[in-house]
Amino acid sequence: MNQVTLDDTQAIAIGAGVLGTGGGGSTYLNRLRLNNELKRRGGPVTIIQADDVPDDALVCAVGGMGAPTVSNEKLQEGQEIKRAVRALEAHLRQEMHAIVIGEIGGGNALGPMITALQCGLPVVDGDGMGRAFPELDMDTFMIYGVAPAPFALADSHGNVAIFPRIDSARQAEEFARSLTIEMGGSAALVMPVMTGAELKATIIRDTLSLAKRIGDAVLKCRARSMEPAETVAALCNGKVLFSGKIIDVERRTVQGFARGKLVISPFNASQRNPHALRQNLEIEFQNENLIARGSGEVLCTVPDLITLLTLDDGEPIGTESLRYGMRVAVLALPAPKELKTPEALAVVGPRAFGYDVDYAPLPGDLL
Amino acid sequence: MNQVTLDDTQAIAIGAGVLGTGGGGSTYLNRLRLNNELKRRGGPVTIIQADDVPDDALVCAVGGMGAPTVSNEKLQEGQEIKRAVRALEAHLRQEMHAIVIGEIGGGNALGPMITALQCGLPVVDGDGMGRAFPELDMDTFMIYGVAPAPFALADSHGNVAIFPRIDSARQAEEFARSLTIEMGGSAALVMPVMTGAELKATIIRDTLSLAKRIGDAVLKCRARSMEPAETVAALCNGKVLFSGKIIDVERRTVQGFARGKLVISPFNASQRNPHALRQNLEIEFQNENLIARGSGEVLCTVPDLITLLTLDDGEPIGTESLRYGMRVAVLALPAPKELKTPEALAVVGPRAFGYDVDYAPLPGDLL
Repeated sequence: MNQVTLDDTQAIAIGAGVLGTGGGGSTYLNRLRLNNELKRRGGPVTIIQADDVPDDALVCAVGGMGAPTVSNEKLQEGQEIKRAVRALEAHLRQEMHAIVIGEIGGGNALGPMITALQCGLPVVDGDGMGRAFPELDMDTFMIYGVAPAPFALADSHGNVAIFPRIDSARQAEEFARSLTIEMGGSAALVMPVMTGAELKATIIRDTLSLAKRIGDAVLKCRARSMEPAETVAALCNGKVLFSGKIIDVERRTVQGFARGKLVISPFNASQRNPHALRQNLEIEFQNENLIARGSGEVLCTVPDLITLLTLDDGEPIGTESLRYGMRVAVLALPAPKELKTPEALAVVGPRAFGYDVDYAPLPGDLL
Repeated sequence: MNQVTLDDTQAIAIGAGVLGTGGGGSTYLNRLRLNNELKRRGGPVTIIQADDVPDDALVCAVGGMGAPTVSNEKLQEGQEIKRAVRALEAHLRQEMHAIVIGEIGGGNALGPMITALQCGLPVVDGDGMGRAFPELDMDTFMIYGVAPAPFALADSHGNVAIFPRIDSARQAEEFARSLTIEMGGSAALVMPVMTGAELKATIIRDTLSLAKRIGDAVLKCRARSMEPAETVAALCNGKVLFSGKIIDVERRTVQGFARGKLVISPFNASQRNPHALRQNLEIEFQNENLIARGSGEVLCTVPDLITLLTLDDGEPIGTESLRYGMRVAVLALPAPKELKTPEALAVVGPRAFGYDVDYAPLPGDLL
């Protein structure tokens, strides 16, 4: 993959939604914005490989911060990430070589391409999560030792904050979260800034290409009126965990997150539901789906991916869009191997989210 | 006044306490810290006049942000303001010419002298409030049009935040307040950065000298076993509003402020209390004392200064130190003229603090 054009954005949006596991923000809005930017510029987004970035060049990951319940209603002004990138370049007196996708899940997969077009920079194929996570210290850049500072936040009113010294990624998360709430519940984030050498040592490669392949597969199924869940699961080395109807959603926006729980009831016809438990499936989420339980057992946890698709056309469902009566397939996909090390599990394993269970990985790796 | 030595800090601390109207943070702690710094450096703080600063030189106001109830217990690490100054100098690629006192009230009068010693810079005689105020957009620099950005916040763990672009002083206050809470309830603030020309157009001059004169007068009364309240009131063109015993204090720390109300009951002997109402005096505060009421009337409001002194020795009392049984004199001192313009009253008048009363100025000006 060496470029992204108008023809690619639908597939990437679907694939990013699948990898978003319910979070990462709306792909719908960012896809519209990316399409507009592609039309206005009349050219594609240039995609490069991490290994093409010189060791001493600077790159920065960018994304949106905040609850998807907020960012769906409080629209971006459009230039906030670019402003934050330019402010960091001015602060550091060095230009960026490329834009990095902070999280491939949800709208945060598409936003960096808009910024890249605005800044005239290429985008690196890969990201720091291979999915979406609720907190910004939960990426492979932070987990594997890239410094959190300097980082920048920007809002839609032209306000910018730069943090030149921060003593930990956790502290960065807390400052950024607090300021994001003050900025109205969503903000543009540029973090981390890193060298090409650091990028190559820490990025999860090729996840933008994976998102595109997933989306292409879903679109192909739709064209043939096939339910896409099995195809997507196979493409990602995972499985369809459950299918059924959403019978309860409990959701609240607290401390800048969309938190809650949903309950899915199985269909009766057992050939529609060969993987099924007889009992309901329960999923808890904090922006992203974190843990799935059924028949009294834990069936899947972070960092493995728990994604809901609409049953018929395989449209991924954000946790902010869940509602009673939706007919869904639940996918369980293995995490990328970079999220399965002891260092990573300390930050993104089930215990890091407050669940008193060990991580029992699904077989295989996402990539 | 052209320098501050160890011999001056007690008087300045007392005078700053008087001007602090209950807020501005503890003078006790900052005086100890200033004394230590003076001993360590073996030299005085150099004091300059605003008019000595070249028009194109840069200066910055510094101070502590947060509730005094917090900063009395969560001690500073000691270098946080210096770190914030250095971070701004690096960001702007220009060195500071002098340090400016953001607010002359309370410990914030003394902190800038510590920073100045640490940075090897002089301090300007004057400040942006002529007293203390709870919010950082409430100084003459902001009121009269100095840009709020760039500003910097720093905590005791080495974390620094710089805000290079901020669209209003109000917005700066909100971001800084939110981040101060995240930093543990108190933080070092460098704001605003301004040119010598801007400084000269907006500073309230000679308030450091005034604090010293007030403190000297109190110390002289103590040496003669005189109650200092009348002397201080006369020196500041104000009056003793009331004297009596504190019979109730209601105080809570909310949203980073110490808020509350106190009730003072008059003494019986009327020659001790010639100014007295027969009824109780009630004062409401938000870090600083904001409004005094008695006999069903409003007697004094912001921006005029309402200060409590211990009756016997004239020690100013911070709102965090108020307690039942204290015998106090209540001073009502006129605000500096810079706080009485329509622009200023829109920000620091009684209505800006939510009181539905017009500002009825005390006669005269503080300076």
